[in-house]
Amino acid sequence: MKCTRCRTRAAVEVPRANAAFCGDCFTESYVRNLVTRAIRHDRMFGPDARVLVAVSGGKDSLALWDLLLDLGYQADGLYLGLGIGGYSTRSHVVCQEFADARGAKLVTVDVADRAGFTIPQAAATKRRPACAICGLSKRHLFNAAAKEGGYDVVATGHNLDDEVAVLLGNVLRWETGYLARQSPVLESTHPSLVKKVKPLYRVAERETAAYCVLKGIDYVVEECPLVEGNTQMKYKGLLDTLESQSPGTKHNFLFGFLEKGRAHFPPDGVVLNECVECGSATPSDTCAFCRSKTVIGVAIGSRPRDWAPAGS
Amino acid sequence: MKCTRCRTRAAVEVPRANAAFCGDCFTESYVRNLVTRAIRHDRMFGPDARVLVAVSGGKDSLALWDLLLDLGYQADGLYLGLGIGGYSTRSHVVCQEFADARGAKLVTVDVADRAGFTIPQAAATKRRPACAICGLSKRHLFNAAAKEGGYDVVATGHNLDDEVAVLLGNVLRWETGYLARQSPVLESTHPSLVKKVKPLYRVAERETAAYCVLKGIDYVVEECPLVEGNTQMKYKGLLDTLESQSPGTKHNFLFGFLEKGRAHFPPDGVVLNECVECGSATPSDTCAFCRSKTVIGVAIGSRPRDWAPAGS
Repeated sequence: MKCTRCRTRAAVEVPRANAAFCGDCFTESYVRNLVTRAIRHDRMFGPDARVLVAVSGGKDSLALWDLLLDLGYQADGLYLGLGIGGYSTRSHVVCQEFADARGAKLVTVDVADRAGFTIPQAAATKRRPACAICGLSKRHLFNAAAKEGGYDVVATGHNLDDEVAVLLGNVLRWETGYLARQSPVLESTHPSLVKKVKPLYRVAERETAAYCVLKGIDYVVEECPLVEGNTQMKYKGLLDTLESQSPGTKHNFLFGFLEKGRAHFPPDGVVLNECVECGSATPSDTCAFCRSKTVIGVAIGSRPRDWAPAGS
Repeated sequence: MKCTRCRTRAAVEVPRANAAFCGDCFTESYVRNLVTRAIRHDRMFGPDARVLVAVSGGKDSLALWDLLLDLGYQADGLYLGLGIGGYSTRSHVVCQEFADARGAKLVTVDVADRAGFTIPQAAATKRRPACAICGLSKRHLFNAAAKEGGYDVVATGHNLDDEVAVLLGNVLRWETGYLARQSPVLESTHPSLVKKVKPLYRVAERETAAYCVLKGIDYVVEECPLVEGNTQMKYKGLLDTLESQSPGTKHNFLFGFLEKGRAHFPPDGVVLNECVECGSATPSDTCAFCRSKTVIGVAIGSRPRDWAPAGS
């Protein structure tokens, strides 16, 4: 098979685009164009923006950081220590080594320092599923770190498959509020919120993996040990089956939603207040992160370092 | 395992209801209640309605006819001869034998008589997929037969799995017009249209199969030979996987749509005209069935018995 672009020997087949590419055309043209198109089409950020890239050590977030650096953006990395044993240790090492090799800056924040619990400790309390408390903590701490560091935007490595799996879950449960908010760009709707963007949302998961392999980026292949049996992983498996039967199904599902479906789900116009404990945006008095800190702190018998009773 | 209702030995497990039933409680209580609830909740028809049940000889339509007769409705059957060789012959025999055993009336209409083509002939012209031309012909001829026979309503055997698979397809392609119209009840919106209802839409496919087995209803087990590789069958396979992982997924997807999702897709308010050839409702001048008759008639070199040039 020959490269669709330069006619040399192809290294990667892309059935959904009915194309194949050699290594250079795949990384420097195909994937890079998908990312630049996302950044421009969705007005994610301008050339002078300070971008904080949330990196986990996995293929997606390191591919994203690599792409943004190659494209000349001021992109620092943010690594969140989740406290998931050897998995977290290895992930941190991989992120630090990538940063060192590229001469880039990696900011590290430990969930335990900020929340008073590690993710496994929180999961063990069985108050919420591990992935729910992890996602909630990440969103809060990514935002806090971006705000503290004066960044213009937080970029996450969510790829096409991630977005499609979330969309399928939202549709299967008809979560109309989530459908209204599902977007590759979440603008800041409150002074405490930093804009969030997903520049990889047009790139398929197997394409970010191929990107890392071709660019020689060392990434953590193992999945988080707490993710097993996770519903999103099940949806991804089903969507993979559909995609292999009809290439383009995932793309058409997501872009059909963005272009035709989403307009049917108007924003719910929730009024955001400042959390009485941390000042971050919340539809309640206390944000979900601060509520979790308290509840889980009590359950595990420890208190976060900055813990204090509400209103004190 | 014991029957959830009468505590005798259970014959059928219903994971999505976290229940199990003996044969009698399953057929006479569980399934029957799902159907009576559908008929009443969705105001499908009253006790004196003349119902025309579209029967194919498969488990769903015969279970439906059986249920409606048991419930005391005036329910005649309508068998449409699609001309699909031995499959059609066997299906017709099964429907006629059911009607004779129940002392019920079976109306038979041949597609070839009305359209000038059999479904395999139409499929061979490759103008449209076999399932598309078959669905279009069925909808037209069910309606025509109901109108001619003075029936109040056409009932079809679409079950929960059918409705869920169609919904998934509509969502994957964000067919917002189809989403607006997807319903267990299609009211008549034009004098030429008879109301359509799906009294089995709350009953799962494996439940209609179990119903037929337990009631000793002989039905055609083989799938239509033209349906192989059909997209809806693929969706059903995927939804079965989801359902086995999380019982209730299909029900929640469909009922979430009916209760929360559908309201987001308002009807498109298309104006219906009378088809210049047959008088049936159409958004164009000529209805899709009459257009197909002409186009396929020319392609196969034959003309329907009542064929005449448009406007003649």
